[in-house]
This record gives sequence, C-alpha cells and structure tokens, in this order.
Amino acid sequence: MNTFGNVYVVAPDSPQSGMGHAITINDTLYCNKISVTEGEPQVEYSCSGTPADCVKIAVNEILKRKPDLCVSGINHGSNSSINVIYSGTMSAAVEAGTQNIPSIGFSLLDYSLDADFKPGIKFIKNIVSQCLEHGLPKGVVLNVNIPKKDIKGIKVCRQANAHWEEKFDKRTNPLGREYYWLTGEFINEDKGEDTDEWALQNGFISVVPIQFDLTAHHAIKDINNWEL
Amino acid sequence: MNTFGNVYVVAPDSPQSGMGHAITINDTLYCNKISVTEGEPQVEYSCSGTPADCVKIAVNEILKRKPDLCVSGINHGSNSSINVIYSGTMSAAVEAGTQNIPSIGFSLLDYSLDADFKPGIKFIKNIVSQCLEHGLPKGVVLNVNIPKKDIKGIKVCRQANAHWEEKFDKRTNPLGREYYWLTGEFINEDKGEDTDEWALQNGFISVVPIQFDLTAHHAIKDINNWEL
Repeated sequence: MNTFGNVYVVAPDSPQSGMGHAITINDTLYCNKISVTEGEPQVEYSCSGTPADCVKIAVNEILKRKPDLCVSGINHGSNSSINVIYSGTMSAAVEAGTQNIPSIGFSLLDYSLDADFKPGIKFIKNIVSQCLEHGLPKGVVLNVNIPKKDIKGIKVCRQANAHWEEKFDKRTNPLGREYYWLTGEFINEDKGEDTDEWALQNGFISVVPIQFDLTAHHAIKDINNWEL
Repeated sequence: MNTFGNVYVVAPDSPQSGMGHAITINDTLYCNKISVTEGEPQVEYSCSGTPADCVKIAVNEILKRKPDLCVSGINHGSNSSINVIYSGTMSAAVEAGTQNIPSIGFSLLDYSLDADFKPGIKFIKNIVSQCLEHGLPKGVVLNVNIPKKDIKGIKVCRQANAHWEEKFDKRTNPLGREYYWLTGEFINEDKGEDTDEWALQNGFISVVPIQFDLTAHHAIKDINNWEL
C-alpha cells in the first residue's frame, strides 16, 4: 500500500478470528502508536478493540481527514461465501463502507503462519489501482479472496450460497465440567460458475461486491401479503 | 412463545451488546441447563458464547430436530437500519437463517431495565403466527423493531440508509494511560417513507426482511468494466 500513498495502520492487538461486526460498547478502548516495522514509511497503531473499532478510531481520532481507501487484511483463511458474515477482516471493510470510504477486504486461502503473500501482490495492486481510479458504487465494498498459489486471474463474482454444518467437540475440563469446541464443515450447495467458491476452486481471485443494506427487497411484496 | 409450541431458550450468560456476528473460534464454550423462570414450560440453557454461538449449540447439541422457528430478543434498544450489522440479537436470527430455519429478531426501542414489553405482545404474536403460516423466502429473516409505546400498527419496510458518526470520549486511567469510550450519533440521511426509521418515528412496528447474501448484484456489471 505504501506504493499508493501515505499509509496508516490501525490493527487489533490480539487475534480477532470470527469477530464478525462486533464493536466495543461496554468497555474501554486503548490505542497506542507503535513501531512494528522500523524503516518502513507507514504510521502504525495498536488498538485493544475489534476490527470495526479500529476503523472507527482511525477515522475519528487518528486521521486528520477521511482516507481515500480502507484496506483490511490480509486475512489468513477464506472469507468467501457465508464466511463474510463471521469475518472481522470484512467487518472493518464494511465499517469503512458505512462511512462512505472506498474499502476492500483481502483474504488469502492459507491459514499457515508461513503463508506466502507474494503471489497475490500484483493482483492486489491491480485491484487497488482500479478501485482508486473508478471508485466504488455508494454502499458497496469489495470482498477479495486469493487462492494459495498458481493464481490464474481475477473474477468478479457473487457470494456462493453455502453454509456451515457445525459439529461440537464435547470435552471435560480438569474440574469435571463439560465444555465444547466449535468445529464444523463448510457445505457449498451452489453449483453456479459465477460464484466466489467456483472462482477460488478454479484458481481465480474472487472479487465480490457486497452491500450493508441487508434489505431483501424481493421479499417485501410477499410479506405485504401477510395479515399484519 | 409458549402459546405457539415447545420453547427452548438458549441465551448468553452475559451482555452481548454490539457483539455483531461474532462466534467463538479460539475459546471453549460452556452450556448449562438452568431454571430461571420456575413454573413456566420452557426449557432453559445458559451459554458462555455469543448470540450466534447460542444458535449453533442449540441446533446441534440441544434440540433433537431443527426447530420450526427461531426468535431472538427481545433486545433492549433499536436494531433498525444500519444497527442490524452490529446487533448480537440479529446475528442469532441470521445464524438460524443460514441453517434454513425461519427466524425473527425482535427489538424494543427502550433501553430501560424496566422497559414494558406488554404493548408489543399482540403484534409479536401476529407476526409469529403469520410467519409460521406463510413461511419465509429462502435466505430471508425478519428484523422487527417495536416502538416504546402507542403502537399504531405494523409496516413492512426497507432498511433506512443511515450511519453512525462516532465521537470518542478520551480519558486518562488511574495509571496515567489514555483510553477511549466509543460514543456516537445516529445520522439518518434517508427521507424515504418506506424505511424502518420512518415507520418507527411514526409509531409503527417495522418489519424488514433481511438477507445474508450480501452480494451487491447491481455492482457486478460496473466492476466487470474495470481492467482486472
């Protein structure tokens, strides 16, 4: 991002997997200037809150003006399809979108701590450059997912119709009390070739424009026929 | 809900304001059968997780079959308009929706611990009864907000185009370290009379059908014109 402009990083100080669009309402927030990567030009802050909190505090307390672009990520692991609703990474992008800031969330399909982010760089630069040039329609942010390797190109997609089937791993703690670990299986019921899942399985980066007006406009007429 | 069928309550064991669609990935979950309201027919569980966790554990570990309906709430305070994305109450409803369970989130526009839920009862029963009779379109759940008093009726609406303008209250802790409280102002830019905000301001219960396919279909063509 340093090749595009002046970069401010405001990042959570702890892992935020599955944080969704949580915000910190009933607790304090700390936000400190730090230096993780000395010698690089970006300004860096560490925040005790959620990804969405980071955007709020960046825009309102740290930056002197509205930024030209918010990028979130790169997340370790897919935020394609229904994963978008659980994703802290995407919630930061959406949060910026609600404040009318062009915004993109990036995720790499590799959970490894040693994940190689390099193959995605030229595609990410392309997407960012086009986003800065064309802007985004009002109320729309981009959900970008990147295959682990052998990237064939970029596809603009819709979100696949998929869901998680949970399996809870039931265990007993040392004090004899039962507890659970949430695990699950990702079920893609969507055979469409215009989906993010199809693109990723076929080696393409998926770009899904998403919106935070959740209204199911097509359902309004149906429900108006109810006796309410 | 006891007038409609057999009720299972699975509720978080702590406040979940602003929890969004967070789920518990990196921690354990506890879920215990309790009895809060003795003498009433519902079966009650307390769960250490988020609202979305509660739905996952209810469906997968507690219930013997998929429930006929999931209701979430009644939340203290509005989940209308953009608040839907921050809402733990609505995330539980959405979570059930992703599992193809008809689902409704209810919120009352009253933060008071003494809030009077009674005026909404007959309307809630009406909405639930119609939902059970007609079902919901696939991928759609209902976001229902209820005025504090003097309810005039029910309107099926779209989500108003509104956002929050944050103000951070900066303070110093006893150790001299600066911290913030997140506060903000709700800004409704939407003058439409078909919105949830309009309905609520005019004394009506708002019913917004919402979806968790976040694809901004109208934006796909635009972005396909980019040089990607």
